[in-house]
This record gives sequence, structure tokens and C-alpha cells, in this order.
Amino acid sequence: MTADNSAALAELEELIAACRLQNKEHKKTGNKEALALGLEQLKELSKKKTELLPPKIKGEAGAKGDQGKMKKTEAEKVEDEAKAFTLKTPKGTKDYDEKDMAVREQIFSKITSIFKRHGAITIDTPVFELKEILSGKYGEDSKLIYDLEDQGGEKCSLRYDLTVPFARYLAENGVSNMKRYHIAKVYRRDQPAMNRGRMREFYQCDFDIAGTYDQMVPDAEAVRVMSEILTSLDIGSFTIKINHRRILDGMFEVCGVPADKIRTISSAVDKLDKMTWADVKKEMVEEKGLSPEVADRIGEYVKLKGSRELCDKLDADAKLSGNANAKAGIDDMRVLLRYLEIFNVLPRVSFDLSLARGLDYYTGVIYEAVVNSSPSVLNGEPVGVGSVAAGGRYDDLVGMFSGNKKIPCVGISIGVERVFTIISGQRDRSTIKSNATEVYVIGLGEGFLQERMQICAQLWDAGVKAEYMFKKKPRNLQVQFEVCDKEQIPLAIIVGKQEVDNGVVKIRKMVKDNVDSVDKEVTVERSSLVESVQKLLKAI
Amino acid sequence: MTADNSAALAELEELIAACRLQNKEHKKTGNKEALALGLEQLKELSKKKTELLPPKIKGEAGAKGDQGKMKKTEAEKVEDEAKAFTLKTPKGTKDYDEKDMAVREQIFSKITSIFKRHGAITIDTPVFELKEILSGKYGEDSKLIYDLEDQGGEKCSLRYDLTVPFARYLAENGVSNMKRYHIAKVYRRDQPAMNRGRMREFYQCDFDIAGTYDQMVPDAEAVRVMSEILTSLDIGSFTIKINHRRILDGMFEVCGVPADKIRTISSAVDKLDKMTWADVKKEMVEEKGLSPEVADRIGEYVKLKGSRELCDKLDADAKLSGNANAKAGIDDMRVLLRYLEIFNVLPRVSFDLSLARGLDYYTGVIYEAVVNSSPSVLNGEPVGVGSVAAGGRYDDLVGMFSGNKKIPCVGISIGVERVFTIISGQRDRSTIKSNATEVYVIGLGEGFLQERMQICAQLWDAGVKAEYMFKKKPRNLQVQFEVCDKEQIPLAIIVGKQEVDNGVVKIRKMVKDNVDSVDKEVTVERSSLVESVQKLLKAI
Repeated sequence: MTADNSAALAELEELIAACRLQNKEHKKTGNKEALALGLEQLKELSKKKTELLPPKIKGEAGAKGDQGKMKKTEAEKVEDEAKAFTLKTPKGTKDYDEKDMAVREQIFSKITSIFKRHGAITIDTPVFELKEILSGKYGEDSKLIYDLEDQGGEKCSLRYDLTVPFARYLAENGVSNMKRYHIAKVYRRDQPAMNRGRMREFYQCDFDIAGTYDQMVPDAEAVRVMSEILTSLDIGSFTIKINHRRILDGMFEVCGVPADKIRTISSAVDKLDKMTWADVKKEMVEEKGLSPEVADRIGEYVKLKGSRELCDKLDADAKLSGNANAKAGIDDMRVLLRYLEIFNVLPRVSFDLSLARGLDYYTGVIYEAVVNSSPSVLNGEPVGVGSVAAGGRYDDLVGMFSGNKKIPCVGISIGVERVFTIISGQRDRSTIKSNATEVYVIGLGEGFLQERMQICAQLWDAGVKAEYMFKKKPRNLQVQFEVCDKEQIPLAIIVGKQEVDNGVVKIRKMVKDNVDSVDKEVTVERSSLVESVQKLLKAI
Repeated sequence: MTADNSAALAELEELIAACRLQNKEHKKTGNKEALALGLEQLKELSKKKTELLPPKIKGEAGAKGDQGKMKKTEAEKVEDEAKAFTLKTPKGTKDYDEKDMAVREQIFSKITSIFKRHGAITIDTPVFELKEILSGKYGEDSKLIYDLEDQGGEKCSLRYDLTVPFARYLAENGVSNMKRYHIAKVYRRDQPAMNRGRMREFYQCDFDIAGTYDQMVPDAEAVRVMSEILTSLDIGSFTIKINHRRILDGMFEVCGVPADKIRTISSAVDKLDKMTWADVKKEMVEEKGLSPEVADRIGEYVKLKGSRELCDKLDADAKLSGNANAKAGIDDMRVLLRYLEIFNVLPRVSFDLSLARGLDYYTGVIYEAVVNSSPSVLNGEPVGVGSVAAGGRYDDLVGMFSGNKKIPCVGISIGVERVFTIISGQRDRSTIKSNATEVYVIGLGEGFLQERMQICAQLWDAGVKAEYMFKKKPRNLQVQFEVCDKEQIPLAIIVGKQEVDNGVVKIRKMVKDNVDSVDKEVTVERSSLVESVQKLLKAI
């Protein structure tokens, strides 16, 4: 071993010790991603160390020398830590426990009932599609698509959204009109930000109207559905920003954006909810080669927001209203905003020229809802907290599959993961009841397992939700009562020797306030047990 | 072009024509898999043909010669057909349309309510797991696991069942007891048989009880849950076959199966529901090298089936009951069958020594439910129609993840796809209502779009499920009534000039029997519209 080596080794030893200490901390705080990173570093360091060791020691697996022994322990330790580490879900995904699920089911149930209120049916498509179905639909984001390994057979990818599979479904089955909702998971290999509800596996709740209808009529219903849902979800006040792709295109044209730069400049405008205008302008000019004057003209337009009066203002702008695209878009907006007034959602809507939306396939009206509370601030300017719902019109997507036949569509997607994050933050987890159990059947003394089973079977036959402890002889009454408390079970049925001998049971209301009222516990015949329980449950 | 070439070309032309004809037929009959194969063949043939063409013609993309033109048309045609073909879901997967979904939701809702009746909570896990979590859990079937492509980062696989993710969840979160259900899709690259409900993407409905409890108590509840669900699903009479892994192991031991052959011989026994004993014996002897005498001894045992009396019979078999494994299994079965008697499910249960179950991880009681109707026949012997539910005890699976800590588990899985196939077969699709719409708002004459919108907004605000036609001026009254008929919408609200002028609407009951009773249509004030509709809906 050279002197150099020995110094380098000493340094590595220190780094390894520090790394291991940090990993321990990550394990304690449950920061799995940092831990993963730390374990990777540890492996790297350990590998480097092995390389620095003299060949003889490196080669001898079972060497008894100090170094060899140390080396083996090192490798084993890393291996052990790595093994322990694999007990996790893949990056960007998570498990939902029973309390999460109770909250999630409430959210889904509210959303579903509103979709159904508007006559939507639901369909289901596979979680993966042929790879070629998805390709060429998502622009720059296509790199985020998960591909399945080629194991012989077709090339498949996990769905990136529910819209493209819906378009494929319409084209494949020759369906020319449909009002459908679809609640399902989609997959994006994006950089996860779990605490803000951005994950690689997440739910989308989509509602779309396909069909050739009159101007802005289905569009208005889509916005109304969005508003009904966000109102029902208790996420506080919100604003639905609306804009139109053709107004954007017209605006870019009159500002002097070259035709081949319109999509990329539109992408830059789309970042205005996360970045300041100064930064967006910088991107336009420095990265995308737009002249500063053109950017400034765009800057004036994207400041504009308002309601129905903004249509008049834009119409009065001779240059803009002289552009065919812009003119058509303004006309659509005028009709839409009138319909939204009829639907009583106009007060929640902001016609906002800075809204662009990233996806390529939109062709008409676009919208995005943001919650108004707690705006984040970036460089002193307020920026949005991210959208909780979005959507728009996409008239050409189905045609990409059906060839000749064009089926116009308009839709919305509710960002349930973000909604879930907001609502979970408001709830006290200990108050969430995650099971539906109504009755807990408790055994005294010898336990009376078979009697408890009999009673449960009676209750189940009548549809009553009942449980009992899976022990022949539960330790005591108290542990069984504790289950009722913990699981928020409203009724307990108690059987002991006396009850069995007399063919009766005791029913106790498991009220939390501990008032020892006379009717807290009643004794009833086994034969009228179900009836009594049902009566008590109804009263609760 | 040589003479040889020209003959070969002529032959290819013929083959191409035949192939194209066949593909046309496949397209007509909707045989997508045959079509896929046919198109592959067509591509091959076309490629060969191009290779046979003289270099000059092959090279000239825009050649005007006949051959060149023909070649281009050929390639284009193949391209077109291939493009048309990609409009499908991946092999072994399917879309569910709105009627399928209505049936599926009814099934899920029944199953969920029974899971909840037994106090189960639900959790959710990601659709893919780290690859190493799944490896080594499914024996021979591991080859059916779908892997995600390595796109940088972790190696992941689609879940093969819900049991292994559940075990991973318990171990990762240190949960030592839980009664949970999970309804979600799982993925197996198996040979699909869509019409029999065997697919590559399919739902599982699982119910599992984890925790250290008294002998056979959770096992009995699992079987009871299975029985309740199958009873509620209208799939006809069924039998729950029950056996015990330790009885099987003991039986193999006393029959003289070498220790290293027990698992593979057990797999052979597992096929008795699809194959005759003669074929199974052949597999044991010829493929797996078992002596015919040992096979015959097994043959005697696997004939045995019965109820509680079979425990006595097996106990009386000194050789078998002298085996520790068999003895423990028989003891479990005696206790279980007594509990099932208390739970009133004994009449539906068959203690059946031929039941083996393929999965490696079972350690105790195993069960499988089959419907009794329409038994298939193979070589003159009746064979099972496939299971609609299955499960068993797996005490060591969680320990594979948690290292030291063993968490015993028992569970069931409902084969909903098969149930769906059975139930769909019974239903007349035209009678299935797939939307929830209660009111259709119809415009007369000029259409009165804005009034219809106003009325719908009023109804939606009150939670009434309402729709209207997305046209300013619908063609006529009849097309709107037809929507009510087709979508089975019970009420129509009608607005025309007269109604608008008088501030009223007409409400019509869309009764199918066409009885022109006086109360079929009522005229009400716009202000009391919602109230009237709610009253009428309640009465329906």
C-alpha cells in the first residue's frame, strides 16, 4: 500500500462514516429518497475503497487479515442496508393507508355523483396501450412515458392520461358522440414532489363530451361541471381561468411571432403561473430567439384579464380583431361567457390572456382552475399554487386515429391528488373512521367464541356490519372495549355465562361522553337481537 | 430480371393476394389476433417482393415505371392496413363500454358491501412494484410477470396479484394485524382466453386477515365471506372445495414421494380440475419420474371428498394420521368445519383431497369455489368449469420481507372477471341503463336553448340528474323524445313559446306502456319546477 493510497483510504473511511451516519438519520425521519441516494453514495464509496486496497487483499474473499475482514464487513453492511432499503414503493409512488382511502373515497364519491348528475356514463380502458397509440401526442412530455419491456410481442406503454385512450376508444369503436367520465390512474416519469401532490402514479378524474354540437354548448357544460365539483369539495374559493387557443395564435401572429415559433412561445407563456414575466421574456428572447420588441408586445397582451367586457376590448383592438384566428376565438368567448352567466358560474371565471396550457392537442377554449388561498410568492411577485382542474377543446385528436372522421371533443380533468393533499391537510386523522363496523361482539369470562360466532352470523345475515375478536378467550373485557373506541364502533354486544344460560345478550351503546345513563345498556332475548340492534343503529 | 426471379415474383404475388383476402375476412369477423398475424405476413411477403425487384426500380422512390409504381402502392397499402390495425388494445386486454361498466359496478358494489360488513378497511398500493419485491414469489409463473423497461432508475414490474404487495405493505409499515380488502387490476402475460374471462389485465377482489389469532378463527371468516359474496352474486349454486397444505404434504410423504418432488407433484395434482386422473398420473410418472405405484397410492387419496366425517376417516388411516404434517392438518380441518357449521356454510363446503392450488406461498388451509352448473366434459370424464373464488393461509410470506417478524395471514380472492362473464351472459344488454339521468329538458319550435340551460342549472343546483340536447334548435320534438327512450330517462320537461310566455313548463312522464292517462303530463310554474320534479321522481 503506498502512502498516497493510505491517505486516500483514510479520507474514504471518513466519508463512509459520515454517509452512514446521515443515512441513519434519513431512516429515522423516513426520508426515503434521501436514503436511496445515500445508499447509492455508500455503494460508490465502498467500491472506490475496494479499488484502493492492495490486490492481494482485494482478491482474497475469505482473507483473515484486518483489511480483508474489514472489507468484507463493509460490503456486507452495504448489502444489508440496501436489502432493508428495497422495502419501499417505486420512486414517485406511494401506498394509501385506510385513512387516506376513506378520504379518497369521499372525494371520488362526490365527483362521481356530479359526473352522473350531468348524465355521463363511464368506460374503462387498459392501463397500458400500444406504444404507437401514445407516440406523437404529448410533444416534449413524451419522454415521460413509461414503456413496458419488450418481452416478445407488442410494444406497450403505460397510459400518460385518459384523453388519448378515450380518443382511441371513440375511433376504434366508431362512436360519434358520448358524454363519459373516467376515474383511473395515469403514469408520468416526472420529477416527483410528493408533498405537493405531484407523483409518478396518480389518479385523474376526467369528464369529456364528444360529438358535433352547437357553438360553445358542451364547452359551457364542461366548465359548469368543473365549478360544481370544486364547490362541493371544500377546498375554499377558486378561480377558473379561461382562454382560447385561437386568440393566443392570433395574438402571436399580430405581435409578429414567426409561424414556426408559435408553439414554443406558447409553451413559454404557459409558465407564467410559475415564473415572473421577466423570466418568461428572458426565455423567449435568449433561449428561443424572439426579438425583444415582439416579446414586449406579447407582454402587454398577457397582462389582460377580465370577464365579458374583455371581449369588447379585444374587438376594439383593430389589429387583433382583424386577425381571423383571434376574431373567431373572441366570438367563441363571447358566447361561452353568456352561457356561463346562465349557469351561474360567471363570478368564478376569469377570461385570462396569460393562460396557455402545455398540451399540443387543444384547438379551442382552454381552462384551468386555481384555488385562491395561500398564493406562493416568487421573487416578490405572487405566483399560482398550481391548478386543481384543467381542460379544453380538442377537435382534432380523434381524427389522428380515425383518419377521415373528425369528432370534436371538449373535456375537463380534476387534479384529485392536489385536492386530496388540500383536504387531508384540513382533517384530523384520528377522527377519520376507516371501517364501517357497527357492532362488536364481546365475550366475557370463558370467551364464548362459538356463541359470538353465532351472533355474528345472525347479524351478517341481516346485513349488519359486525366483528368479534379472533380469540377463544380474549384477555378481558377492557381490551375488547378498547377496540370499539379505537375503531369508533357504536354498539357492543356482550355475552357471558349468565347471558348464555338465560338466552339473552346485553347491548351497550359505546357513547364517548361516558354518561352512565340508564339506557346505556339493554338486555334483549337472543331471538330479538337483530331487531333491537337495527333499531338502535337507526337512532344513532 | 431473371426468369427465376419472375417466377418467384409471380408466386409471391399470389401469396400476397391470398393473404390480403384472408386479412379482409379477419377484419370482417373482428378476429384481431389473426389479422395482426396476417398483416405481419403481408409485410414479410412485401419485403421479399421488393428484394426480388431489379435494383433500379427498387432504388427509385419516384420511379414512373409500372413496377416502381406497383411497388409503391404495395408498400402504401401494407402501411395503411398496418395503421388501421394498430387501433386496438394490447393483446389480452379489452375496453369496457358503458353497459359493461354498469354491470361491473353492480358486482363491485355488492362485493364491497360484504367486505365492509365484516369490518374490512381498504388500502391502495401502486400498480407496479420494485422487481425484486415480486421475484421468487410465484414459482414457475414468474415468467408471466410484466417488467417495465429500464429507462434509468429502478427496475419495476407490474403487480401479478394483490397478495405480495399486501405482504410488502405489512412488512414495510410494521403492521402486525389488519383486515383489509383491495379491488384492483393485476397483470399476467398468460395466454389469453377472453371469452372465458381469462385476460392479461384483470381485476382481483381480495380480502385478507393478517395477525396472530386462534386456530382457524380468521380462516372460518374468510370462507364465510367467500360464501356470502358468491350467494349475493346470482351465479347459481356453487361448491367451496377445501383442503390443507399439510394434509397434502403428509399424504405425499406417506405415499412415498421423495421430498424434492413434493412441490412438483403437488402442481400435477392441482391440474385435476382441468385434466383426468389418467393424464395427471401420466405427467407424474413420465414427466416427473414418479414410480407408478406411488402415483397409484396418491390416486386413491385424491379421490376422497366429504365433510366432517372425512376427518374421522383420515384419522382412522393409521399411516396418514401417524404423519405429523397430516395429523396437524386434519386437526385444523376438524376445527374449521365445526366453525363453518356455526356460520351456516357447511352445506356449501366440500373437504376435497384433490384440491392442491398452484401458488408456492400457501402454508395451511386452501380453498377454491366452483359453480356447479354446466360442468364441462373432457374424454368422457366431467371436469371443473374453473374457479370463481380461491384463497388460503400463507403464514410465511410477510416474513420474506420483514426478516425476523412473522405475520400469519389468510385470504380470499374473488374471480370477478369470470363472475362478470357469467352475469353478462344472463343479462339482456338493451335493458341495462348505463347513465343516471332522471330528466331530459326538451325545447319546442325555436329551441329555447337559454331557457333549457336555465332549467338544467336549477335542477343541477338541487342535485337532480338532468340533460338537454346541445343544439340551439333541435330538429324536432321526436328526436328529443327518442333520446329519453334510448337512455331510459323517466321524465321530460318541455318548453315552447307558450310555456316561456306564461312562465311555466310541462313535465311528462316518459312511461313505456303508452297509457294516455290524464296525469301523464302536468303543467307547473317555473318557480315550483324543482319541487314538482322531485315529487314525481320519488313516486317512480
